[in-house]
Amino acid sequence: MLRSHAEALDAADPLARKRGQFYRPEGVIYLDGNSLGMLPLAARAAVDRAVTAEWGEGLIRSWNSAGWIDKPRQLGDRIGRLIGAGHGQTIVADSTSVNLFKALIAALRLNPDRKVVVSEEGNFPSDLYIAQGVQGLMPDIELRLIPEGERDAAAYIDDRVAVVMLTHIDFKTAHMHDMAAVTEATRAAGAISLWDLAHSAGAVPVDLDGVGADLAVGCTYKYLNAGPGGPAFLYCARRHQEQAAQPLTGWLGHRRPFDFTLDYEAGNGIDRFVCGTPPILSFTALEGALTVFDDVSMADLREKSLRLTDLFIELVDTRLGDAGFSLVTPKEHSLRGSHVSLGHPQGYGMMQALIDHGVIGDFRAPDLLRFGFTPLTLSYADVWDAVDRWRRILDQELWLQEKYAKRSRVT
Amino acid sequence: MLRSHAEALDAADPLARKRGQFYRPEGVIYLDGNSLGMLPLAARAAVDRAVTAEWGEGLIRSWNSAGWIDKPRQLGDRIGRLIGAGHGQTIVADSTSVNLFKALIAALRLNPDRKVVVSEEGNFPSDLYIAQGVQGLMPDIELRLIPEGERDAAAYIDDRVAVVMLTHIDFKTAHMHDMAAVTEATRAAGAISLWDLAHSAGAVPVDLDGVGADLAVGCTYKYLNAGPGGPAFLYCARRHQEQAAQPLTGWLGHRRPFDFTLDYEAGNGIDRFVCGTPPILSFTALEGALTVFDDVSMADLREKSLRLTDLFIELVDTRLGDAGFSLVTPKEHSLRGSHVSLGHPQGYGMMQALIDHGVIGDFRAPDLLRFGFTPLTLSYADVWDAVDRWRRILDQELWLQEKYAKRSRVT
Repeated sequence: MLRSHAEALDAADPLARKRGQFYRPEGVIYLDGNSLGMLPLAARAAVDRAVTAEWGEGLIRSWNSAGWIDKPRQLGDRIGRLIGAGHGQTIVADSTSVNLFKALIAALRLNPDRKVVVSEEGNFPSDLYIAQGVQGLMPDIELRLIPEGERDAAAYIDDRVAVVMLTHIDFKTAHMHDMAAVTEATRAAGAISLWDLAHSAGAVPVDLDGVGADLAVGCTYKYLNAGPGGPAFLYCARRHQEQAAQPLTGWLGHRRPFDFTLDYEAGNGIDRFVCGTPPILSFTALEGALTVFDDVSMADLREKSLRLTDLFIELVDTRLGDAGFSLVTPKEHSLRGSHVSLGHPQGYGMMQALIDHGVIGDFRAPDLLRFGFTPLTLSYADVWDAVDRWRRILDQELWLQEKYAKRSRVT
Repeated sequence: MLRSHAEALDAADPLARKRGQFYRPEGVIYLDGNSLGMLPLAARAAVDRAVTAEWGEGLIRSWNSAGWIDKPRQLGDRIGRLIGAGHGQTIVADSTSVNLFKALIAALRLNPDRKVVVSEEGNFPSDLYIAQGVQGLMPDIELRLIPEGERDAAAYIDDRVAVVMLTHIDFKTAHMHDMAAVTEATRAAGAISLWDLAHSAGAVPVDLDGVGADLAVGCTYKYLNAGPGGPAFLYCARRHQEQAAQPLTGWLGHRRPFDFTLDYEAGNGIDRFVCGTPPILSFTALEGALTVFDDVSMADLREKSLRLTDLFIELVDTRLGDAGFSLVTPKEHSLRGSHVSLGHPQGYGMMQALIDHGVIGDFRAPDLLRFGFTPLTLSYADVWDAVDRWRRILDQELWLQEKYAKRSRVT
């Protein structure tokens, strides 16, 4: 395939206009937006405003005048639009792990006669660690893990199951669960569904209300481009909210936080999932970042995501076929998220060489090269150029250099 | 007292040079740094750098190259210097409420044969709410509350007590516990001490190692000036770290987070108190804010704090004596933190009038006007001017205007 083919796809791309809304480092082809999204110029402007005008000038008054106090709900609703959640069911708060802790305990309390939590070995480890932390507090809870590679989640759900806690899109392979089918199987078994949307929000269409999901969490620093460690979100379906009891009962989840009463009383609806005072600067970056999505249809986004990943898979096959990569990401569209992972025994050093030559992906132990395809920031020509640079790295055996062998702390 | 007296104090003030390191809104006398500290110019510069150079330009590489991954420990140690905590015992993470949840459960697990948690009715409500959240998970825990107004904490500590969880400086009255004496009484009773330093860190000298404290938490958006919702900190004495088991077992508290193993294994030492990915923009604001303290001695800070609050108390007495305020903050230096609270039946409207006239304090239900005195940002003349403006508001009965009667959401 010629570069001109990619250029033609770019010329017809309805999302091409979005690229100019991001800060673009010179010489970099960024294929790691699935780990940390690029900087939206609107996020930078929002942070500038929050620092000087709101904090510096407004000081404590900005809790009211700049609406800081409303941000958990307000930003939650704006994310809600991207994940199929109607008004008043999503809040922004804390980290994904902390929110998962809240949601898992709330889910178990909604189903108190059952003790089994279904999850999967391939889940993001923090999710499993949090489940283990919950077991430390609720020792009769049993964790039932779907073995790695096994995809039929429904086969593991029976009438002993309290909660099905899965990550919609696998962080390593990009395998995507059929959210509608698994949620329905969960519901039919009398269990509560709890979805982790870390690799889904802003990347693929999600319809939480439509599929009848019970609870969900997710992060904003990947495809939502809210910046490093951007705050996480939590969804709780309206039908559960008044019964939902989460354990991190901080004052901002109280029904009347500024009454300073002695006893905790859970806030109305989704509000009760807030805990402490939110980190406003990070919230503001998210607020700016979400404006980029205002005029984007998730259908357009999904279509471009699939075309980008299709193009990459095809180019790896046709131009790098001699290098011995194994594709671990499903070729079938309905099973694929928005990144592509390739196995290679020398994957670590190869990724370091790529990064050093301006093609930034990441590496996941033991042997995966992982490339994220963010439709708002990437062109088809970027994909072509990335593979072209990689071809040269292979031809010149650059990746075998000593300097690429050493592991850093964060990979 | 004449204004020239205050001016003379300013002329001799070794901390006067610090005022220029903060953004100063025109016409405002800010007496609410105990709720949200002013913007340090170094914090703004640090955030600018983090947004454009680190996030925008460095992207994912900044986890290593900009040291993002080290910030929880690194910033923890820098706060440690201000609270008497030696290296490797403090981390920055999450919110104060979330950290209190971790610390309280860890403390209870260090003392598993006992079930009583001593706290006080006057504690910041979020601390009590979190204790109630812990009770929801550990139903045999009993909460023993010291009644409001009762100051002899030691009288409530006996050999049934597992944990003594107190806030060092009362958020309403500014009453300060004798940390050394209470910690010693706690230790002598075989209990674990857990201090909330929300109104202490950066305001008064604290010596956690010196008094032999076991655990502590605190916030950074008050006297440490880290910005709205700035991240919180947690201290765990080294002697407890390898036994400490906190329940929010997220991946960044794992011993080897990037190995992505299936089972949680607590990180080394204080690292195990980290949970999820930290909000880096808010962390960076803290990093900048802490540079302001680099050449400040806590003794100078404390001396100026006491002089500012003494001056305010004296001026309220001599110039506003007819208005019927009751001083609820102790006059005795050893019992006083860095704010002053005055009771008045029409306190809410009076505070609104003050704010409207550029003297920003805050109101705490039911009847307290609260004024924070931050030695790095305030001059003695500011205190004189604040009381002078207040005198005029009283003389002209401005605070009785209708517009000051309505309560806002955040007070």
